[in-house]
Amino acid sequence: MAVVGVTGAVGQEFLSILAERDFPLGELKLLASERSAGKQYSFKGETLTVESLKPEAFEGVDIALFSAGSSVSKEYAPVAARAGATVVDNSSAFRMDPQSPLVIPEVNGEALEGYEPGKGGIVANPNCSTIIMLVATHPIHRAAGVERMVVSTYQSASGAGAAAMSELERQSRDVLDGRRPEPDVLPHVSAFNVFSHNSDIDENGYNGEEMKMVRETRKIWGDPRARVAATCVRVPVMRAHAESINLELAEPLSPEAARSALAEAPGVSVVDDREANHFPMPVEASGRDPVYVGRIRRDISREDERGLELFACGDQLRKGAALNAVQIAEHLVGLPLRQPA
Amino acid sequence: MAVVGVTGAVGQEFLSILAERDFPLGELKLLASERSAGKQYSFKGETLTVESLKPEAFEGVDIALFSAGSSVSKEYAPVAARAGATVVDNSSAFRMDPQSPLVIPEVNGEALEGYEPGKGGIVANPNCSTIIMLVATHPIHRAAGVERMVVSTYQSASGAGAAAMSELERQSRDVLDGRRPEPDVLPHVSAFNVFSHNSDIDENGYNGEEMKMVRETRKIWGDPRARVAATCVRVPVMRAHAESINLELAEPLSPEAARSALAEAPGVSVVDDREANHFPMPVEASGRDPVYVGRIRRDISREDERGLELFACGDQLRKGAALNAVQIAEHLVGLPLRQPA
Repeated sequence: MAVVGVTGAVGQEFLSILAERDFPLGELKLLASERSAGKQYSFKGETLTVESLKPEAFEGVDIALFSAGSSVSKEYAPVAARAGATVVDNSSAFRMDPQSPLVIPEVNGEALEGYEPGKGGIVANPNCSTIIMLVATHPIHRAAGVERMVVSTYQSASGAGAAAMSELERQSRDVLDGRRPEPDVLPHVSAFNVFSHNSDIDENGYNGEEMKMVRETRKIWGDPRARVAATCVRVPVMRAHAESINLELAEPLSPEAARSALAEAPGVSVVDDREANHFPMPVEASGRDPVYVGRIRRDISREDERGLELFACGDQLRKGAALNAVQIAEHLVGLPLRQPA
Repeated sequence: MAVVGVTGAVGQEFLSILAERDFPLGELKLLASERSAGKQYSFKGETLTVESLKPEAFEGVDIALFSAGSSVSKEYAPVAARAGATVVDNSSAFRMDPQSPLVIPEVNGEALEGYEPGKGGIVANPNCSTIIMLVATHPIHRAAGVERMVVSTYQSASGAGAAAMSELERQSRDVLDGRRPEPDVLPHVSAFNVFSHNSDIDENGYNGEEMKMVRETRKIWGDPRARVAATCVRVPVMRAHAESINLELAEPLSPEAARSALAEAPGVSVVDDREANHFPMPVEASGRDPVYVGRIRRDISREDERGLELFACGDQLRKGAALNAVQIAEHLVGLPLRQPA
């Protein structure tokens, strides 16, 4: 196996997760840009040295996990695939490519049919906010058909990488110490602020992150008319995203039935304690594998029973990125889907 | 005039706003609990001393601005009103009382008909998140009729008072310095976290803050069937709330027409620069008077033109509380509604 972009926030998470889950590995190659070559990381007691990313690096690699940005994926994922590596790509480069399946194992693992290690091909890992939304809503979609989703996100700094996480930390100190915080990695002040996601705005007024949630849902659910209205917002949180989700269903579904469907669903942990006012929160989701779902209630703005509201939270670097990719790799090597601890 | 609860976050904001706006005052009495009696505050160059809140304190007072919590309002607002003071109450105590008008001057100033200084009566100031939502949506309601709102909030610490603001600061330092943050004022960790609003949960699964947005909208719009589905969430921001609002309209309305209606509306400032990715943000709304509105776009999850999405942001202590109350007082003394600078 090769990990491409190992020095980044997601790359580092690949290493932790592969070790934690004891992924069956032959050799593990760490690849990154020229300037990171020679860096060393310890992995299960061994010291591994980063090699520079070159076309030859993929010889003999069965699976390549990529997380080095879209332009690196566009250039090197096809090279890796031609060399026989089955690529699992965390960037947006191949998500909408009809030749690449876009996969959340809990939702559409069957899309991996025909893919195996060493056979080539590029499998795309969805956007973090899409993964969290669909793990949380798929059990309800199966039970009663989701006809429309209105979602507002509370997205962590990690979605913009390790530098954005450091920036949030640095700016928070600046504000607390009375210094003026200067945005650098992200376009607006991160500390003690919320702002509309910094991706480019389409002509329709939606930003790139929001349109990913729309288009990727359509591809993953195999429904080109799936209806999603998303508002993506960054909040001063390190590494877990939260989402407020309003659902319109094809069939009536009680909150109790929704809660049961969620409690049994793969990858979901229900946290919905009204008495204790305890619901999904980034501080509890960070570093954990499940997508936490709570605030499950009937939408009181509708007269029928076809409206439900939820609040979901998941670790952006784990289930939102590295964990989902490793789960795809586990599926490729024939391991069964595991329920998170 | 008397200010009740002057030592609190909103009480302090009353003083700043009365001074800034040069409110026509005779005497200004500062009232607070016994233990704050004797504290001094400077107001327009004068030093004022806090008196202890007692029934006799309202003799000769024409207008009393209350912000000392519901139980103080329940006890003392009727006393003040009987003594002839016209009370503007920032607590939730009288909001749903059919005898008290619930007023946002930009939306339903006409509900103050018959109220004047020194005549007694209790006017209720709405909840902060309701005020921000209705200032932002009322111009659209007037233009095309709002039939349903789905709103998710991003609420600041100030809504839970000065102690919650200090707690957010203290916990943020704890996290940055590697100490474990201990929740005290709020039930969950505030720093680098988001959590469902800490008000009690109704049987229907909605919390108190969310139900305020529903019930207060119905009263202010005079429409007992107004449909609102709210999800109220606290974010690590000091003093401005943001809200992601999805609207279903009775009549089609283009985003351009909505933008024009908002640009002309009292109390609103449109910040909707797609090119520069510049939209309403707490860091820019804090300490300012307008409700900022942006991300104005047609809801792509609907096939018709009766869906709109917005993102609004306003200072919770100003328009969400003290400013709205002072604007009610200005209306009482016959001053015209002023557009914020």
